[in-house]
Amino acid sequence: MTPDPPAEFGLIARYFRPLAGPGALDLLDDAALLRPPPGRELVFTADAMVAGVHFLPDDPADTVGAKLLRVNLSDLAAMGAVPLAYLMTVSAPRDTGDAWFTAFTAGLARDQARFGITLLGGDTTATPGPMTLSLTAIGHVAPGTALRRRGAAAGDEVWVTGTIGDGALGLLALQGRVADPDGWLAGRYRLPQPRLSLALHGIVSACMDVSDGLVQDLGHLCRAARLGAVIEAALVPRSPAAQAAGEAWLATCLTGGDDYELLMAAPPQHAEALKAEAAAQGTSVTRIGRFETGAQIRVLDGAGAAISLDRPGWSHF
Amino acid sequence: MTPDPPAEFGLIARYFRPLAGPGALDLLDDAALLRPPPGRELVFTADAMVAGVHFLPDDPADTVGAKLLRVNLSDLAAMGAVPLAYLMTVSAPRDTGDAWFTAFTAGLARDQARFGITLLGGDTTATPGPMTLSLTAIGHVAPGTALRRRGAAAGDEVWVTGTIGDGALGLLALQGRVADPDGWLAGRYRLPQPRLSLALHGIVSACMDVSDGLVQDLGHLCRAARLGAVIEAALVPRSPAAQAAGEAWLATCLTGGDDYELLMAAPPQHAEALKAEAAAQGTSVTRIGRFETGAQIRVLDGAGAAISLDRPGWSHF
Repeated sequence: MTPDPPAEFGLIARYFRPLAGPGALDLLDDAALLRPPPGRELVFTADAMVAGVHFLPDDPADTVGAKLLRVNLSDLAAMGAVPLAYLMTVSAPRDTGDAWFTAFTAGLARDQARFGITLLGGDTTATPGPMTLSLTAIGHVAPGTALRRRGAAAGDEVWVTGTIGDGALGLLALQGRVADPDGWLAGRYRLPQPRLSLALHGIVSACMDVSDGLVQDLGHLCRAARLGAVIEAALVPRSPAAQAAGEAWLATCLTGGDDYELLMAAPPQHAEALKAEAAAQGTSVTRIGRFETGAQIRVLDGAGAAISLDRPGWSHF
Repeated sequence: MTPDPPAEFGLIARYFRPLAGPGALDLLDDAALLRPPPGRELVFTADAMVAGVHFLPDDPADTVGAKLLRVNLSDLAAMGAVPLAYLMTVSAPRDTGDAWFTAFTAGLARDQARFGITLLGGDTTATPGPMTLSLTAIGHVAPGTALRRRGAAAGDEVWVTGTIGDGALGLLALQGRVADPDGWLAGRYRLPQPRLSLALHGIVSACMDVSDGLVQDLGHLCRAARLGAVIEAALVPRSPAAQAAGEAWLATCLTGGDDYELLMAAPPQHAEALKAEAAAQGTSVTRIGRFETGAQIRVLDGAGAAISLDRPGWSHF
């Protein structure tokens, strides 16, 4: 008999092999090989995305691929790491068409070029359930320089990159619940901007990315440091589109998640260095509060009164 | 407000943190850190498993966790790599109970100890679909010594470890279609034995693991070398349980997959070295045929006549 490769291998050859980089062995072997950059520490993160949970089933497939990569790159950014390679598993409904795979991998190809990362390996399977994607990203840092969630001190200031709330409002916009005349909010939901390239070691005392909601994620930095924090809602940077959506959505911005911005602690005397580094990379940074003793997170309105939030953020389970 | 961790983080703390090893940072950070073993090349593989596709929804959860790890370890074994660490994403139905997670992680914990590997990171999400698991395994080899699928030469012999067909028959046994009085076949389906520890560099000319069916996977070695192969069905090692199932299941054994045995090419003059290395590791190896010029795989019966097979193996898509 002639050993023709089956459907699974046709998918790999057509769509995934063009994404394969050094060490991937053209995706023809049982595993991939990587010679680690000499003298560097490796950084690993993995995130899964499920259609209907983490993205909308009718989201354009090119943005689904790009978002899958970017949410992982955002984790690398939160550690101060440089992207290197990734592995990916795709569990797709059997009726997934060529058009979906073509667009999905085109989105990945564009972002591979943009962020300097290539596919190292993975697996493609069918599923009777929704499209389920899993990606493991590999980066590297100088040994001992990775940014950590722990390390904030009382008196350190709370900083964020970019704007907060767009992702959560973007999902609502795509559901028809928030106006989004120019598509900015939907774009931010579908294509987060991982804040790579910022050299923050020695400037910030703690760092993470905001994926599950600003207030909840601030709770992680607080618990890791056994501290509380106070933030001023009016200082939390919101995009013009988020502001136009109205003050009724303030709590959504503070707790909605899907921001993929960096949340940082920095001693007050590092404020100028932080702003200078961000400016050099074309990224905005905004001071929104400070860490303090205690175990509470207080969110204050313009009059200094505490705002009550129904929930601090989002759980994917 | 008090920043209590949400459900997702409770799952991580209860079930996954106890599996975390060096560099995992207690699964409390955005990513994990790994200092690569000096002077070694890293080896990466990723496989997904979907309930109802790759395992049975009522398979014991401890064997599901162990199988997920072992199918990836089998890929590391096929490259001649030593296991180091893994990342895992779990997309679980919302009604998945504590008992499932307890057993699933107990199976992983046992195998972590058995195979010398620890959890480095991952993600836990809900899914409206079936349980979907993805695992990325990291191993290491001396630079330039990884076993590859390409490299077989005409005249090299075809070898396999262990026995072939048990996995496929085990699935049929669990479906009530094949007798399995002592549970051997089901056990082989649920708990493959990754053939780690064999030092095959310099002995074999090509290697892979048999996951999609012996004949189909032999096709990969043949295509990579632009060769054909002939194997004798009577030489393919079958366990006593597989033999007891009867000759009617011969084709199933040859094409059914889920074996996770090594399939190797070796020059005839290396046969003794291969047998000695296998014996030293307590693993059986059996010569089942040879590579030859051409592009066909011929499977011969005891009379030297070609056996016709409906399909060469299994596609997961």
